[in-house]
Amino acid sequence: MILEIAMLQVRPGLTQEFESNFAVASKILSSMPGYLGHSLRRCIEDKNKYALLITWETLEAHTEGFRKSSGYLEWKALLHHFYDPFPIVEHFEDLSP
Amino acid sequence: MILEIAMLQVRPGLTQEFESNFAVASKILSSMPGYLGHSLRRCIEDKNKYALLITWETLEAHTEGFRKSSGYLEWKALLHHFYDPFPIVEHFEDLSP
Repeated sequence: MILEIAMLQVRPGLTQEFESNFAVASKILSSMPGYLGHSLRRCIEDKNKYALLITWETLEAHTEGFRKSSGYLEWKALLHHFYDPFPIVEHFEDLSP
Repeated sequence: MILEIAMLQVRPGLTQEFESNFAVASKILSSMPGYLGHSLRRCIEDKNKYALLITWETLEAHTEGFRKSSGYLEWKALLHHFYDPFPIVEHFEDLSP
């Protein structure tokens, strides 16, 4: 199991629209092969910041499966224009294999 | 429920010692009032980086309870010298209250 973490900085004034679009986009995400779960959480210290945590069966389910899917084009169109700067996405594994 | 996220950059060459000390320190953490759970995960893209995710009942369980406890002095002594730079710690809440 791989945990993807992305810290999302949303442009000021657009957080409600972002949250609405994310609700639509999350349906695309959860239909992907290898998707195990996700949560989107709002930062207490910075109201324009969110943490997106997604669990995948494998790294490739995200980097190959999702990012090369037609659903990813919809995901991008729904969400990517909200971010400034564009987020760094990293993947994390359990300490004990 | 509050999710604390800290991205930990461990000084190169010290990751095994850090993981050993963390195993000891985690017992202090899990004994704290308001502690609900934690996970430490290793970054795939950067082998000196870890994500520490801790769930607390409230923000104050971390910022007041843990940080002002005697256990926190032990936690610091076990872990803080591994980090460079010292991590930024942020707290996240669910989207729907």
